[in-house]
Amino acid sequence: MKLWVGIASLVLATACWAQESGIFQPASTNVWGAEYPRVDNAGRVQIRVKAPDATQIRLNFWSGPKMDMEKQADGFWTVTTPPLAPGLHYYTLIIDGAEVSDIGSHAFFGGGKDASAVEVPEPGSTYYSPQDVPHGAVREVWYNSKVAGTWRHALMYTPPNYDTQTSVRYPVLYLQHGGGEDETGWIRQGHANFILDNLLAAKSCKPMIIVMAYGYARRAGQAPPDLSGKPFGSPEMMKAMQDMAAAFEDDVTQALIPYIDANFRTLPDRDHRAMAGLSMGGMQTFQVTLNHLDLFSYIGGFSGAAGPLVLGDRKLDPKTDFHGVFADPAAFVKKVHLLWVGVGTKEPERMRAGLLRLHDSLEEAKIPHVFYESPDTDHEWQTWRRDLKDFAPRLFQ
Amino acid sequence: MKLWVGIASLVLATACWAQESGIFQPASTNVWGAEYPRVDNAGRVQIRVKAPDATQIRLNFWSGPKMDMEKQADGFWTVTTPPLAPGLHYYTLIIDGAEVSDIGSHAFFGGGKDASAVEVPEPGSTYYSPQDVPHGAVREVWYNSKVAGTWRHALMYTPPNYDTQTSVRYPVLYLQHGGGEDETGWIRQGHANFILDNLLAAKSCKPMIIVMAYGYARRAGQAPPDLSGKPFGSPEMMKAMQDMAAAFEDDVTQALIPYIDANFRTLPDRDHRAMAGLSMGGMQTFQVTLNHLDLFSYIGGFSGAAGPLVLGDRKLDPKTDFHGVFADPAAFVKKVHLLWVGVGTKEPERMRAGLLRLHDSLEEAKIPHVFYESPDTDHEWQTWRRDLKDFAPRLFQ
Repeated sequence: MKLWVGIASLVLATACWAQESGIFQPASTNVWGAEYPRVDNAGRVQIRVKAPDATQIRLNFWSGPKMDMEKQADGFWTVTTPPLAPGLHYYTLIIDGAEVSDIGSHAFFGGGKDASAVEVPEPGSTYYSPQDVPHGAVREVWYNSKVAGTWRHALMYTPPNYDTQTSVRYPVLYLQHGGGEDETGWIRQGHANFILDNLLAAKSCKPMIIVMAYGYARRAGQAPPDLSGKPFGSPEMMKAMQDMAAAFEDDVTQALIPYIDANFRTLPDRDHRAMAGLSMGGMQTFQVTLNHLDLFSYIGGFSGAAGPLVLGDRKLDPKTDFHGVFADPAAFVKKVHLLWVGVGTKEPERMRAGLLRLHDSLEEAKIPHVFYESPDTDHEWQTWRRDLKDFAPRLFQ
Repeated sequence: MKLWVGIASLVLATACWAQESGIFQPASTNVWGAEYPRVDNAGRVQIRVKAPDATQIRLNFWSGPKMDMEKQADGFWTVTTPPLAPGLHYYTLIIDGAEVSDIGSHAFFGGGKDASAVEVPEPGSTYYSPQDVPHGAVREVWYNSKVAGTWRHALMYTPPNYDTQTSVRYPVLYLQHGGGEDETGWIRQGHANFILDNLLAAKSCKPMIIVMAYGYARRAGQAPPDLSGKPFGSPEMMKAMQDMAAAFEDDVTQALIPYIDANFRTLPDRDHRAMAGLSMGGMQTFQVTLNHLDLFSYIGGFSGAAGPLVLGDRKLDPKTDFHGVFADPAAFVKKVHLLWVGVGTKEPERMRAGLLRLHDSLEEAKIPHVFYESPDTDHEWQTWRRDLKDFAPRLFQ
């Protein structure tokens, strides 16, 4: 019977699930048959884990409630949160001091680990879920990067007719994850593929390829930085982060783009190449695109843009920052077809302040740009799904 | 600075890593920068987790050692295992009674959850790692299954020239995961894509498409079975498992195969269609292929084949089992180009006995088949990687 134990446990789990009643339903982010986490119509989340010998368990939503769970007589610990905003919320459990993921949840790479997350549905929103429309494909590719000296993994989206209309060439959007996430984020957490499928079915955007790269890099032969004893934010750490950002910039421009253009039916010129990213990926986007306007003409910063490495807490100086590319609005508009910046209204104050300051700086410098505020969402994926939904239709028109 | 916390923590983690010395190295299955798990040349594994307030932590290798970890003065718990066989070993940690994954490890879906795993390298083996050869693509597809009444997710491998040689059509191998695993297993755990890349580069096998389906299904409108109070192995549970297997069979033959043949450049006939699977997937393979010899002509059972649902502990009866397809060897050989069965020499005795008994039954019935024993490997992925390496070159010749 051993062969069947795995599947039998799944069958049993679904049986338990069927016995439950009430308004709480298993989250769509759960593994097959897992009864918890559960979500109700108001966005309240129930978590339940078995830990008969634990003395304390804390539920740790990264951008949400942090609550002590309560031990029940059966050895399970439970908690119900206040209503959460719609969207995908990362969380971990802290069991007697150990930060771990909840095995009822599928894993989503964030915070440098395969973390848990719960999806709170947005009533009436269908733009990021699979609909009965033609679906593009998500591909994984490996490219041998001379910059990094390793095989690197990237995800791609190709639009629905890519395989059948084999004489058509497509523009490309390079789309980056945030700090602590990886190249899987825009598909698993963001549902970028479904967002594009649905926009394309509605004829709201141009067919395009999306490339999602792994946003960390170290140059071939470069040793990891020795930061022992160096405090957070120290000059040594800033240097290490700048080195990594520069290695990533070279990997994108010298390894990834040539690989994509050589292996896929792209329109390989600046007028048909965009880059956008969220948080850390937004900062990488500004660095990569503004250093390489020969390669890019569409730029998106989702809850991250000019960034602390370049500006710190000051305003943009259009005359000097980013090689003075913002100094002459007329020249800028000739080169950059779209500059897009966004932030959620419920993001942390310092985050919002940085994006608002950049928006003001661009206004003062008379640089045309789109500034989008996502209502009632935090530094989380619902903001970035909305960003992509607003951003993609503006590309390659 | 908040924007940079994620990436900064990764930079710091790599710094710690660089400070370590000795023969233990971080496992290739770790998340970026995670110092533990570590593996030495003999296959010993070191695990280390932070859990300052825990009272007991047990390391739980599913097909390997189960050991108590030791608490250190700094709040970390550590353990070093005896040497493990080469390959990928699933494990979890049991922290004060809670079974959880190790956040130093990437997640691998097994046992119905995103579990941890550690890769112990096989000295000199390069056949399942990326080499400097042309790489095929891994694709994710979603198909709208009328059988299941839902969108279903599958992974595919297309060979290196699929995108450029657009007039070529390819044979297809349907390749299934085991019980408790999912459609990601053959790529993430098995490295099926690298195995095929390397076989193709050596001209050891024919170019083919591989399709990896999600091996659980429930018919549209069918309620989950109510198994409350029913013991493991009860008639009700067996019925539930048979229902799931039958729904999967219909999904493969009525939804998945038509979708693949309609959307990819396949050779859509039985002479160019194979199916294989591991453990539960091997049993599904026997059921699906032997019920549909109009669709398949190559059959592989990796550590799973006829299976307990059909045979229990008895020998195969060639006259009656599987519609008597094994009754006439000459007729069988005309229909089935390859019947392949394998098992690892270190698999649990009952598992080995089942496969050996099937092998004997086939010998007695004079049914030509390949029987392969993987030396020194257990009911784990190293067995199945070797199986695929032996099986794939025999297809479509």
